[in-house]
Amino acid sequence: MQINYDVVIIGGGVAGTTLADQLAANKLKIAVIENDLWGGTCPNRGCDPKSILIAGVSTVTNFNNMENNGVSGQAKIDWPSLMEHKRNYTNQIPNRTEQGLLQSGITTYHNAGHFIDANSFLIGDDILMADRFVIATGQRPRTSKIVGQEYLLNSNGFLDLDELPNDITFIGGGYLGFELAAIANAAGAKVHLIHHNDRPLKEYDPEMVDNLIKCYRNSGIEIILDTDITQAAKKNNQYVLTGQDFSLTTDLVFATLGRVPNIENLGLQQANVNYDNRGVIVNDSLQTTNPKVYAAGDVISRNLPKLTPVATYDGDYLSKLFMDNNEPIKYPTIPTIIFGKPALAQVGRVSTNADDSKIECVENDMTNWLSYKRMHTKFAKAKIYVEKSTQEVVGATIISDQADYLINIFTIMINNHATVTEIDKYIFTYPTLASDIKYLI
Amino acid sequence: MQINYDVVIIGGGVAGTTLADQLAANKLKIAVIENDLWGGTCPNRGCDPKSILIAGVSTVTNFNNMENNGVSGQAKIDWPSLMEHKRNYTNQIPNRTEQGLLQSGITTYHNAGHFIDANSFLIGDDILMADRFVIATGQRPRTSKIVGQEYLLNSNGFLDLDELPNDITFIGGGYLGFELAAIANAAGAKVHLIHHNDRPLKEYDPEMVDNLIKCYRNSGIEIILDTDITQAAKKNNQYVLTGQDFSLTTDLVFATLGRVPNIENLGLQQANVNYDNRGVIVNDSLQTTNPKVYAAGDVISRNLPKLTPVATYDGDYLSKLFMDNNEPIKYPTIPTIIFGKPALAQVGRVSTNADDSKIECVENDMTNWLSYKRMHTKFAKAKIYVEKSTQEVVGATIISDQADYLINIFTIMINNHATVTEIDKYIFTYPTLASDIKYLI
Repeated sequence: MQINYDVVIIGGGVAGTTLADQLAANKLKIAVIENDLWGGTCPNRGCDPKSILIAGVSTVTNFNNMENNGVSGQAKIDWPSLMEHKRNYTNQIPNRTEQGLLQSGITTYHNAGHFIDANSFLIGDDILMADRFVIATGQRPRTSKIVGQEYLLNSNGFLDLDELPNDITFIGGGYLGFELAAIANAAGAKVHLIHHNDRPLKEYDPEMVDNLIKCYRNSGIEIILDTDITQAAKKNNQYVLTGQDFSLTTDLVFATLGRVPNIENLGLQQANVNYDNRGVIVNDSLQTTNPKVYAAGDVISRNLPKLTPVATYDGDYLSKLFMDNNEPIKYPTIPTIIFGKPALAQVGRVSTNADDSKIECVENDMTNWLSYKRMHTKFAKAKIYVEKSTQEVVGATIISDQADYLINIFTIMINNHATVTEIDKYIFTYPTLASDIKYLI
Repeated sequence: MQINYDVVIIGGGVAGTTLADQLAANKLKIAVIENDLWGGTCPNRGCDPKSILIAGVSTVTNFNNMENNGVSGQAKIDWPSLMEHKRNYTNQIPNRTEQGLLQSGITTYHNAGHFIDANSFLIGDDILMADRFVIATGQRPRTSKIVGQEYLLNSNGFLDLDELPNDITFIGGGYLGFELAAIANAAGAKVHLIHHNDRPLKEYDPEMVDNLIKCYRNSGIEIILDTDITQAAKKNNQYVLTGQDFSLTTDLVFATLGRVPNIENLGLQQANVNYDNRGVIVNDSLQTTNPKVYAAGDVISRNLPKLTPVATYDGDYLSKLFMDNNEPIKYPTIPTIIFGKPALAQVGRVSTNADDSKIECVENDMTNWLSYKRMHTKFAKAKIYVEKSTQEVVGATIISDQADYLINIFTIMINNHATVTEIDKYIFTYPTLASDIKYLI
């Protein structure tokens, strides 16, 4: 059967549902297609469940820092109950997401499908036609190519692990590798994190990454650099990872090798939609090479962090574009964060090797701040970048348990072109991290 | 001996030392006089030590919320070690503060003194003359007037208590009463908080205060309203508090009845400096009725919250006024907070009884936010006030464990005249409280 819509959205994740809800509120006839879990990666297998597991980590870390400094007892992560806490949240996501769409008058298709030409999308027996299509299929974990890759689990597996083994290895020192390693370590496992070269988290200030690695090693996490794993083999109930002059026996192995866009099997060629290995190619209105087809969120090939709030921003943008706006998309400053132990966050322009003579860096050991001292925080450091000519704050890299808080305040400052003295114009509640910022810059 | 200075500052607390440091950096000849602890109330007996004790409270509260939701064990406040943690911080404050002043070339007098006329301040055998004097003597806890008031301790006593008795009573439901009650409760004491009328924390939205009282009662704190205590008596090792139809036996009693300005014994009348029972009267340049004499910080009589960051702001302002600036002082929006359990914070214009038809209130139960859900937070509520005609955010009242974080972001928004949609222009790290704010307004 041929069915006509105003907009057909392929992908029921953050970008797709944000867009669908707003278009439906404007009375457009919308279909959303999802071939996996309604809600997509973020609430099912991404930021949200990770954040719930990290709630356990921060509780235990906080307790450990304060132990013998005013607090006594013992705090341990109880993995099964932490997983239950997570599942209480995630289990309801798919149904609740689809019900939300249906209640907004949106048609849902829970199936895979593909373009059959530039104007039609086949799903089951139906051919969907629309004024506009939006590809919002996101990404999935990259599969390892080593011999024995079938023994490796990925981040989806970690976030749904029934029992935590004693010894866990992560292959790949990206943001997920660092985050999951911190969780497993706090939960009591012996953790190994293997990275193929000497520069994990390469988007971040190398000196701050070195600091983070030191913190990880001090927590008992083994970080193994410059090591290519070539083979995984099963041995009794364990796994043996081997590389050149390297061998490690461990209970469970997770590949944390980054993510790849979900662009196969969509019939993009039939639809004249160009793509590369980073995703669907779009112009500055998120329009693909087929003028009828747009893309949103992680599936887009671009030099921006692939993050939930960026996907939300894309969805918001497209809803306005489809209704009345013709402006190209313009992103504000986008902060990034590794919710590690401690967290590492970065925003704006950072001069990672002093090659930018127009900006200067102010460094701060924040452990002397009352906000950290009172919690007996072990490591907290900030590097703030200031444009010499204007004294505008242009960037920041921060390591600390509250890096998320601080980086968001710097994000506001950078968006507002605030100068270093602007923070003195505010009166914040005292003593808080916000009131401490004036000691920073 | 007569000694001449550019500026003589009476009071070595936050306002006085902020001002002294900046003037000394500009090569002025400065004297600072302190008759008690160098550093003043905030770092010795105020916000800072309180904040350290609250670090213990939040650790235990956080643990208790997460218990059986991913974390197991037991977390208790160990009062002696918490007090040691606090003293490690506070013990070094007086000496470090004075040494800091001396190293900046400032003359310090550790003694009481008073004006002998409009131009001279007597301290010991010295007569200090100056182009300008600044009164920055702060406040002290108000003494109770009841029979047996000599049995009552004050907040200074609580913040330096060697051992925590089993049963503690606070008389006076101001911000300190609520804060210290939360600390004592989390530390395991049975706590009673007595307030003379039915409206404690009267500067705050009454409905939110009612919510806070509910949270306190749910924590096991007995809040007794509409009760005037007329007498305290000692009975064995306990104290008996009595009022009309009221009697309570308790282990230790603290008067938390607010604070009074330190204006006696300064010879203000000889100096022609006017004052009232709220403090020294100043104009909009912080100048008193004697043009040579200024005031800064908590000692000023005014309709502003008496807070550390306001004292800092005064010190900053006077240093500029004395160097080159002639502008009257203009305060930004000032947030206030009760670091209770949970915290209650407020900023800007709030319509406490719907009598302001130009603003509307958006209410939110924030326990549905991931940021609170992940930590199993029991109560979190926000009321945001928006100007109807402009859609500008003009005020907020927030109850939650992270009220400090949120109120500071609203403080920035209000100062910047941000509208409700402005928050959508930012991309914040996700999931964090900042990224949740868009669900609020």
